[in-house]
Amino acid sequence: MADPRFFSRAGPLSLGVLAERTGARIGSGADPEHLMRDVAPLEAAGPDEVAFLDNRKYLSAFEVTKAGAAFVHPSLADRAPKGLVPLITEQPYRAYALAAQAFYPEPMAAPGIHPSAVIDTTARLGEGAVVDAHAVIGAQALIGRRCRIGAGSVVGTGCVLGDDVRIGAHVTVSHAIIGSRVTLYPGVRVGQDGFGFAPDPKRAVKVPQLGRVVIEDDVEIGANTTIDRGAGPDTFIGAGTMIDNLVQIGHNVRIGRGCILAALIGISGSTQIGDFAMIGGQAGFSGHLVIGNGARIGAQCGVMRDVPAGATVVGTPAVPMKEFFRQVAALHRLAKQKGGSSEGE
Amino acid sequence: MADPRFFSRAGPLSLGVLAERTGARIGSGADPEHLMRDVAPLEAAGPDEVAFLDNRKYLSAFEVTKAGAAFVHPSLADRAPKGLVPLITEQPYRAYALAAQAFYPEPMAAPGIHPSAVIDTTARLGEGAVVDAHAVIGAQALIGRRCRIGAGSVVGTGCVLGDDVRIGAHVTVSHAIIGSRVTLYPGVRVGQDGFGFAPDPKRAVKVPQLGRVVIEDDVEIGANTTIDRGAGPDTFIGAGTMIDNLVQIGHNVRIGRGCILAALIGISGSTQIGDFAMIGGQAGFSGHLVIGNGARIGAQCGVMRDVPAGATVVGTPAVPMKEFFRQVAALHRLAKQKGGSSEGE
Amino acid sequence: MADPRFFSRAGPLSLGVLAERTGARIGSGADPEHLMRDVAPLEAAGPDEVAFLDNRKYLSAFEVTKAGAAFVHPSLADRAPKGLVPLITEQPYRAYALAAQAFYPEPMAAPGIHPSAVIDTTARLGEGAVVDAHAVIGAQALIGRRCRIGAGSVVGTGCVLGDDVRIGAHVTVSHAIIGSRVTLYPGVRVGQDGFGFAPDPKRAVKVPQLGRVVIEDDVEIGANTTIDRGAGPDTFIGAGTMIDNLVQIGHNVRIGRGCILAALIGISGSTQIGDFAMIGGQAGFSGHLVIGNGARIGAQCGVMRDVPAGATVVGTPAVPMKEFFRQVAALHRLAKQKGGSSEGE
Repeated sequence: MADPRFFSRAGPLSLGVLAERTGARIGSGADPEHLMRDVAPLEAAGPDEVAFLDNRKYLSAFEVTKAGAAFVHPSLADRAPKGLVPLITEQPYRAYALAAQAFYPEPMAAPGIHPSAVIDTTARLGEGAVVDAHAVIGAQALIGRRCRIGAGSVVGTGCVLGDDVRIGAHVTVSHAIIGSRVTLYPGVRVGQDGFGFAPDPKRAVKVPQLGRVVIEDDVEIGANTTIDRGAGPDTFIGAGTMIDNLVQIGHNVRIGRGCILAALIGISGSTQIGDFAMIGGQAGFSGHLVIGNGARIGAQCGVMRDVPAGATVVGTPAVPMKEFFRQVAALHRLAKQKGGSSEGE
Repeated sequence: MADPRFFSRAGPLSLGVLAERTGARIGSGADPEHLMRDVAPLEAAGPDEVAFLDNRKYLSAFEVTKAGAAFVHPSLADRAPKGLVPLITEQPYRAYALAAQAFYPEPMAAPGIHPSAVIDTTARLGEGAVVDAHAVIGAQALIGRRCRIGAGSVVGTGCVLGDDVRIGAHVTVSHAIIGSRVTLYPGVRVGQDGFGFAPDPKRAVKVPQLGRVVIEDDVEIGANTTIDRGAGPDTFIGAGTMIDNLVQIGHNVRIGRGCILAALIGISGSTQIGDFAMIGGQAGFSGHLVIGNGARIGAQCGVMRDVPAGATVVGTPAVPMKEFFRQVAALHRLAKQKGGSSEGE
Repeated sequence: MADPRFFSRAGPLSLGVLAERTGARIGSGADPEHLMRDVAPLEAAGPDEVAFLDNRKYLSAFEVTKAGAAFVHPSLADRAPKGLVPLITEQPYRAYALAAQAFYPEPMAAPGIHPSAVIDTTARLGEGAVVDAHAVIGAQALIGRRCRIGAGSVVGTGCVLGDDVRIGAHVTVSHAIIGSRVTLYPGVRVGQDGFGFAPDPKRAVKVPQLGRVVIEDDVEIGANTTIDRGAGPDTFIGAGTMIDNLVQIGHNVRIGRGCILAALIGISGSTQIGDFAMIGGQAGFSGHLVIGNGARIGAQCGVMRDVPAGATVVGTPAVPMKEFFRQVAALHRLAKQKGGSSEGE
């Protein structure tokens, strides 16, 4: 079970409750009142714990698990060992996630506002909002219901947060309009000036950055990620997009809904990324590109041109995946030949 | 116009004032007393707004703009539509930047020192300096006139800041001598120990890092960028250099004047970069290199050898740009051939 | 000498004391009572300063140095100029590091707890612990002896720190068990949720991250580096491992003892890295890989497959170093040929 110094377990929960919370169907003959006490992996689970099988790779572990119940796809439910109650669902990993949420609900913050927080008298906080020690909230800021502002975080003048926004410690938010159920992990920087200046032999001239950052509902932004505000247009992150740690998003960038961005990605100014794109770690994008819906961009990819919707690209400069691996193979063969024939060159 | 929750507009400003502030010349026949109210892009501007044309790509937008005035190069001024006052200048984007600064002056911070700030009694603050909530200023620190220290930022013992330095929230500065008009964006880390230790089979031995970070005038350093102090010599950033977010600068690195560094660059210890170099995002440098004045380093470039002044290099390992694109083309052709002849290999 | 605004020098120290602290042997005939006042590089050192020769490249500087003493390998000690006392050791750089530590001991923090710190009444602090301004320590946290918690840092509920842990300013620690003599530089993020969710066409479902971060003794973690906690298993960093700035370590990653990781590296979830591995800057790892003991991974390397113990790999996708340079050479030749024969293609 999870370390009780850090996690509080709820429960026990009956199979019936778990089925209801996850949308799974209880295997025939099982008692819906039967109680489960925890989630656990297939290999470690005991008779009062719930596991899951999502990847066929673990089918043999499933067949011998001691778990009391497990989420499993309908096509594999009949592989359950004796004593295991199959909880049948088309999306076993999603069901496991919901069950784990039920056993380990997000801890309630101690309600209220820490006396060391500095909150401008013109800021408005929704019912149930929590403001941790040393946080700072600027003039005219609007903070939604049940928002949590972490220790030391700074929400600037005029910023708007929807309901249930969770802001970790040491986050900086300025010039931003943020939806509901958004999570900003510790050290996130949202809304600072973009990298904008007019070159000048004597001294570069700063171009005032007059846009904002707009973040829609259900977005997560990873630790120490930086999102500059727009130069005139806004920088925009669509609903449900998940961004990992240490990502750089330049001014005027527009990211669609439901995208997944791994860590250490850099997106240069004014590039647009469609809905449901998936981008690997350390990939980089030139400015002013258009990346289509559903595009998949490989890790460390260097994208210098537009990418059509649905395409998968890899490499620097980015090429379609098939071509990338053909190039890799061709280069491998070439190096072998030349290595033999002209080593001494 | 810019969102009034975040930006306060000054003005209106007469064409005469705008010409004077930007060095532009008012097209013949126009009334210098004519008032403008805002800046705007060519497509959106109305009769009391000022736009600009810097890139010929937007010439057709210029020819039909409804803007009241626009900064434009002398060679294109005669393409102005009827009703538009051309504001003629060799550097239209620079003039626009100055006009935008005139309409949207940097907001004045509420003067003074927040009562929650912790300032050592031996620190000295120049006239007009502003210290935000929860900032910490160490012993013997010297803070210049009109400096602004953002919420929660920490300026360590003995640090020196010139005049008009702007430090965002959550910045850490130690062991640093900083010039005037320098901007450190939120989360910047300046002056911590470099990555220095003597290997030892039992336990690496820390090498005391006895240098400083010296930052000259007019430098900007982007959010969450890290600059380690020198090991003995100083780490040095020359005047007017612009550094984007999430950049890593190792100990003893020396960067010249007027350089531009995009995001997520890593520069290993003791590398020297000349004046006016331009470095693309995610580029990386081995240690102890010498990069000449005016060199241009492509995005994601892996630089393992010295680069001569004025050269442009791309790729990993970095090669001259011409060669890089020849390699890309050659590899593309090779993959095609082999793809046809030996797919099954 | 080091800038006295930032560094306090101890001493003078006799050759005898320096020999004892560093394990070096004093060259024959020298007086062990002779006093030294500082460390300095070979070119700059004077008669009361100690230098070192570690790299034969600097042998000529050694032969003419004015230093009073220098750490040097036994095989080169006879190259010492007249007037220099050789301090003979198999590891001159390590000895220099220890001597520099003796001249510049880590400054003692002003003891005690700053009144602006917010410490839960159930937290326990060891003898001699120092808590700087605005730091926050959560319920049930256990802080070891002589730990130093930097300004504004947040140590979450239940966290455990061994003795002599040094935490810089603006660090966030949660869900973590940390050994002794660990250093976390400013802006480090340890223990936040990993990037874990079950995809769903409507809205991704967060998977509760129920593991911890476990950091063994003598680890250093560079500024603004992020280490996510495990999803169920722990994220683990072995004893003596050194991690540079802006590194991303995903959930469930396991890093062995004595590893060295340069800046801007990204390690995806569940990858395991053996003991004493060395990883160059900006390298990236896919998830679920196994990297063997003593492996060496080049800068900017893209590692998509397991790497055997002791191997050295370079490139993207990573290949053995020898092959990488063969590929580079082959591609160079190919580009030249094609450049001649089919430029116009």
